[in-house]
Amino acid sequence: MQQLSVIDLYDKDIEDKSTVALEGSVKTIRGSKNISFIELNDGSCFRSAQVILKKDNPNFEEISKLPIASTITVEGEFVKTPDAQQPFEIHGQKVELVGHSNADYPLQKKKQTFEYLRTIAHLRPRTNTFYSVFRIRSLAAFAVHEYLQHNDFVYVNTPIITSSDAEGAGAMFRATTLDMNNLPKDEDGKVDNSKDFFKTVTNLTVSGQLQEEAFTMAFKNVYTFGPTFRAENSHTPRHASEFWMIEPDMAYTRLPGMMDCAEGLLKYVINYLLEHAKDELDFLDQNVEPGLLDKLRGTAGEEFARVTYTDAIKMLQESGEQFEIPVKWGMDLKSEHERYLCEEIYKRPTFLTDYPRDIKAFYMRDNDDGKTVAASDCLVPGIGEIVGGSEREEREDILDKKIHEFGLKPEEYAWYAELRKYGEIKHSGFGIGFERLVMYLTGMENIRDVIPYPREPGNAPF
Amino acid sequence: MQQLSVIDLYDKDIEDKSTVALEGSVKTIRGSKNISFIELNDGSCFRSAQVILKKDNPNFEEISKLPIASTITVEGEFVKTPDAQQPFEIHGQKVELVGHSNADYPLQKKKQTFEYLRTIAHLRPRTNTFYSVFRIRSLAAFAVHEYLQHNDFVYVNTPIITSSDAEGAGAMFRATTLDMNNLPKDEDGKVDNSKDFFKTVTNLTVSGQLQEEAFTMAFKNVYTFGPTFRAENSHTPRHASEFWMIEPDMAYTRLPGMMDCAEGLLKYVINYLLEHAKDELDFLDQNVEPGLLDKLRGTAGEEFARVTYTDAIKMLQESGEQFEIPVKWGMDLKSEHERYLCEEIYKRPTFLTDYPRDIKAFYMRDNDDGKTVAASDCLVPGIGEIVGGSEREEREDILDKKIHEFGLKPEEYAWYAELRKYGEIKHSGFGIGFERLVMYLTGMENIRDVIPYPREPGNAPF
Repeated sequence: MQQLSVIDLYDKDIEDKSTVALEGSVKTIRGSKNISFIELNDGSCFRSAQVILKKDNPNFEEISKLPIASTITVEGEFVKTPDAQQPFEIHGQKVELVGHSNADYPLQKKKQTFEYLRTIAHLRPRTNTFYSVFRIRSLAAFAVHEYLQHNDFVYVNTPIITSSDAEGAGAMFRATTLDMNNLPKDEDGKVDNSKDFFKTVTNLTVSGQLQEEAFTMAFKNVYTFGPTFRAENSHTPRHASEFWMIEPDMAYTRLPGMMDCAEGLLKYVINYLLEHAKDELDFLDQNVEPGLLDKLRGTAGEEFARVTYTDAIKMLQESGEQFEIPVKWGMDLKSEHERYLCEEIYKRPTFLTDYPRDIKAFYMRDNDDGKTVAASDCLVPGIGEIVGGSEREEREDILDKKIHEFGLKPEEYAWYAELRKYGEIKHSGFGIGFERLVMYLTGMENIRDVIPYPREPGNAPF
Repeated sequence: MQQLSVIDLYDKDIEDKSTVALEGSVKTIRGSKNISFIELNDGSCFRSAQVILKKDNPNFEEISKLPIASTITVEGEFVKTPDAQQPFEIHGQKVELVGHSNADYPLQKKKQTFEYLRTIAHLRPRTNTFYSVFRIRSLAAFAVHEYLQHNDFVYVNTPIITSSDAEGAGAMFRATTLDMNNLPKDEDGKVDNSKDFFKTVTNLTVSGQLQEEAFTMAFKNVYTFGPTFRAENSHTPRHASEFWMIEPDMAYTRLPGMMDCAEGLLKYVINYLLEHAKDELDFLDQNVEPGLLDKLRGTAGEEFARVTYTDAIKMLQESGEQFEIPVKWGMDLKSEHERYLCEEIYKRPTFLTDYPRDIKAFYMRDNDDGKTVAASDCLVPGIGEIVGGSEREEREDILDKKIHEFGLKPEEYAWYAELRKYGEIKHSGFGIGFERLVMYLTGMENIRDVIPYPREPGNAPF
């Protein structure tokens, strides 16, 4: 007899009428007083196995009355059913209880709201929706690694706790071991940060990019893929306090090469899912975002648009569309503008390039026009910005000027400037908010529903 | 003309005498007044390309005097050299300066100490040793993902900021946005933590295992691979304040299956490196740990030993060896004991199983003897413990008892206990400290030398 997973029953060539052993959870039980149909799920795949139990079985009474989520072992006959909806069924022989669930199990059949399910983040992966979302999240993460590794990118784990503040942007969480009820003070009565764990103030990273660039100089193509943090009081469906970022960086590469890489990465991830997450995408297409599959197949198959910020501004101004915030050169585009561009004008993912330098970070490379930088964001329908990238200013003298101009403290960026001092290398990179990507891939509309245990202002349970 | 990377010159079938274009850093320059030999490295692989520049080249004088780490572009003839040590050389035609390095570049030829190199963590990846270490770190990380994903494990990103304290073990960093110079106070004059960002005290995770187990119940096989933190004042070569952990967890699996998985994973990673990091392993074998390759090939090829803690204690007692700390049943084995077992007695990686329950965590599954738990650590020569795992106590009643017995607050573990309330599933898992693994794989003896920017008490630069 073979101890199998449910996925084996679908994927392996099991002999008809052979005896198999399974173990799993009862997803549903229905039937009559003579026969029970048990949907048995063991998590190995989206689908369940149908187990049939007849009245003559010694455990029929006990098993048939089990609450949902009880766990059982099943020995039975594997019977192919070529004419039925399911390709096989299991005729239960020895069926035994392992763990009795409780009648108050909160995931009963009736549909629950996503809001409620967030309060039981430890149980929601057992639902079809969250099973699909989190399996896709896992496969997408792997596809990212696979694409980059197969293109000779080196994975760099930049520090989470940092004494650098990346781009001087965004509120940060402090990491500390000081006893807040008994703080050490200096002579002026201020907190003595030299008594903290790292003898200084340290925060949680908002981006690994700057530290990563040191590795670009050594390895040519590198990437980070790890958690980042923003202590911002945002309560939107698109912001979380803790989220994962993918940040590739490429030496000897300019903006077009950077966009090629980002576009290739997004398409690779989609194709990987179309191959490895059929059941999950089907379910989400039918239950969460109608048209999801068409959208993903479209994105994987079409060339992304590329247009300069300046041209895009013109197109928006000439579109005749009434925007809440009027469009004018120099502005940071709002979601309504970004979405109009990729949803109405181009109807596909769109790279916007060469933004005004004053609205972008100090490390982005100045264009020769003196007004713009070699930056590029990728906007996708339904989401807006999903990729933000740029050439990095590799010219030591211009970088120094910009550090001053942006009001940063040169001594904090001395090591970063040194990367240029010892050999300027032109390079480009981009960042993808991984959760934004998973939202796009699954059709989920709230970032809290694509993170296993989301963290938001005022709320960090589990 | 083809714009190529150095790795292309080695791996692709480039036509003899064809013209190629390269861009990279000057690793060394030597020669005479009539000819210069430039070792050009672009980070795409461990090896460099030799560029030959002759006096008749208009840029000969300028290029020949460049300081190390200057960056140049090279157009030249690709010439196969079947009789030389290197398979080819580039006869430079158009060679131009991109970025002039500085004469005070700290990585000149002479060997620097690892201690010194830690102070220039932004530059050390450019050395042969750290190039090898961090490329191996990246490949090992990918091999971990690939092994687990190909075995249908689902990757779960458990939270970094947590209001749970995992196993009540280890000092934690607090994550906070409170202004320490202006702390909100409650009526008793204590800090009012409800005013903090998450309206409560939150810390940086020490392990994602407990949160992960909720996903085991849904996906059967799951794993985490992310950063974890210990705010401990340890200054040993084996402890860092921030490090990455790999934590697989498997439903319907007991201790032997867990050990099979851990053993399979370690062997997969080693074989992956033997295939993909030949140059790097050769370099480390010759310069860092003589015998490294033999050690790794041995581990990949041999069955790991498995012995119970109780039998191991007997063997240690009967060995005649004088240990600093005498061996007795019930003790937590020290490094000297662990290493004697795997280095002297078994001479290979060794799983120790069934430890005394009193020295292990509350969530480990009680054995029927009432004295031990179904735990298993894997000890490897030169390192000691590299894997720590166990069956997880899935029986709701026994788990409840142990939570009380270990002095934990039941209300904090209510959601964890609920995982059992709604269907007990036996499951097992293990943790691997990723940096310990990388030390084993590279022969590096200090954990600070396998982390891009190590964090240790009193020190978090960059």
